[in-house]
Amino acid sequence: MSLDRLIAKIIEMKNPTVAGLDPKFEYVPAYLQKEFLSEDGETLKAASKAIFRYNQMLIDALCDIVPAVKLQAAYYEMYGHHGVKTMERTIRYAKLRGMYVITDAKRNDIGATMQAYTAAHLGVCKVGSTEFEPFGADALTVNGYLGTDGISPLLETCKARDKGIFVLCKTSNPSSGEFQDLLIDGQPLYARMGDKCEEWGADTVGQFGYSAVGAVVGATYPEQLTELRKRLPHTMFLVPGYGAQGGGAQGIAGGFDDKGLGAVVNSSRAILLAYQKEGCDEHDFAGAARREAIRMREDLCSFIKL
Amino acid sequence: MSLDRLIAKIIEMKNPTVAGLDPKFEYVPAYLQKEFLSEDGETLKAASKAIFRYNQMLIDALCDIVPAVKLQAAYYEMYGHHGVKTMERTIRYAKLRGMYVITDAKRNDIGATMQAYTAAHLGVCKVGSTEFEPFGADALTVNGYLGTDGISPLLETCKARDKGIFVLCKTSNPSSGEFQDLLIDGQPLYARMGDKCEEWGADTVGQFGYSAVGAVVGATYPEQLTELRKRLPHTMFLVPGYGAQGGGAQGIAGGFDDKGLGAVVNSSRAILLAYQKEGCDEHDFAGAARREAIRMREDLCSFIKL
Repeated sequence: MSLDRLIAKIIEMKNPTVAGLDPKFEYVPAYLQKEFLSEDGETLKAASKAIFRYNQMLIDALCDIVPAVKLQAAYYEMYGHHGVKTMERTIRYAKLRGMYVITDAKRNDIGATMQAYTAAHLGVCKVGSTEFEPFGADALTVNGYLGTDGISPLLETCKARDKGIFVLCKTSNPSSGEFQDLLIDGQPLYARMGDKCEEWGADTVGQFGYSAVGAVVGATYPEQLTELRKRLPHTMFLVPGYGAQGGGAQGIAGGFDDKGLGAVVNSSRAILLAYQKEGCDEHDFAGAARREAIRMREDLCSFIKL
Repeated sequence: MSLDRLIAKIIEMKNPTVAGLDPKFEYVPAYLQKEFLSEDGETLKAASKAIFRYNQMLIDALCDIVPAVKLQAAYYEMYGHHGVKTMERTIRYAKLRGMYVITDAKRNDIGATMQAYTAAHLGVCKVGSTEFEPFGADALTVNGYLGTDGISPLLETCKARDKGIFVLCKTSNPSSGEFQDLLIDGQPLYARMGDKCEEWGADTVGQFGYSAVGAVVGATYPEQLTELRKRLPHTMFLVPGYGAQGGGAQGIAGGFDDKGLGAVVNSSRAILLAYQKEGCDEHDFAGAARREAIRMREDLCSFIKL
């Protein structure tokens, strides 16, 4: 009922990172592309099957050194229901390999509709008397603009099924300040959102001091990361923007507590496309991803005491 | 490149409403449930196929009197990739029957990820040299909390492919004020969001005076609807919360301009479940939906000059 399972894995692997599986068909090495195109032609199905194989091989290469994966739903929806099937299969496979799975879908709605999103991504769906786990992730990113009505349905499932959520707070993009930095009685909106995360999570605090309700805070805003770490003692941070978007390990360190906990840092493209950057044989794409994940762990751990 | 196609259909049918296709398997009449369960057992596939048939029959019954349908993505995701396939097929079928299709998915992200959502829902996805329209809706609801970075990728597609978006502004739920009503320099956050909609849509204003960037404003807040109608002259409103959530036609009237344009009002459950409320033979569920849609049109049009 908290994020303890994630935190325990981070401690076990001494690695506070999450690998972002945000794949495009163009990212898949040419030899794999060819294999699936020759089977199903230039179709969404072929692309989706190729991406699943790519994900599987990445998961195999990462699962003993990286505690978690984060699937960005947009990249699966882009391939229609075939892509969504690949999302389902990837989640299942990553869990099978022992990884903690975050679906980054930034879902938001109210009441019965938010219940449906909760059932889809973290819960179960009943058909007659038979129950199914449609996606079955461990945690989901959500957008809190609609207030408590949009969060309550998730909290019930977090408690009942030991799941977590990460609420968008201060995002990593250049224009995140347009709304998130607006001052209300002298306090920025993102701090208000953070305070709500503390409130929403209050009765789900686990053994490491963090609740089931985390917050998304970008690596590109190190001052706000540090400020929010102090302000939100029970709210774990999911930190996007490391590497590609310009957030460095030193700046990110402020998002961690003095035990080296309280944050998990995402890297997507740098890991997925490490084989291109490294210039190695494309058949070794998963090996290159592993080397980049190790480099990232060492980079982060040189600033964080874990 | 605006919402003109929607507005033209509203004028043609003298009906500013959209039917919300937010189906659950439990809503499907028992005779149809049975038919599909006997084929595929108690599975997500059976439920999804039953929902598609239900949607088809509703679309057939509504397409000559209701200009648009709105699919709530959560109810399709709840059935996994099978449900998402039903969403795809329903969108295609509704377009075939001439309806304007809004996907209510409240998507939000930044940069390349928002491009992927845009490609998925409003644009095209390329596999090799072959292009696909994964979902192919006419318009998409989105959440603007991430600022302009999350909206720009959509605008390009709106212009290039004659599509529209509706940005969450003042939502219909009781707790919508927690963030949306917060005052910034004396102005509520939802008004700021509305001002941004005007800005984002500025170069896409169509022949009826409205841009490609609409806003979601709940029927349950009639004062804010009226206030925002004046404040945002080029922003069309998608108005949820009629009926089931307590928003009445008289209050909604303030969301329209003096030509009876500028808003489209959604009804979901009241239409989907009209057969239960009416107590008619369940085989006539689509007929009951049509009768409810006509009642709603007359209710709205008694307050709105169209």
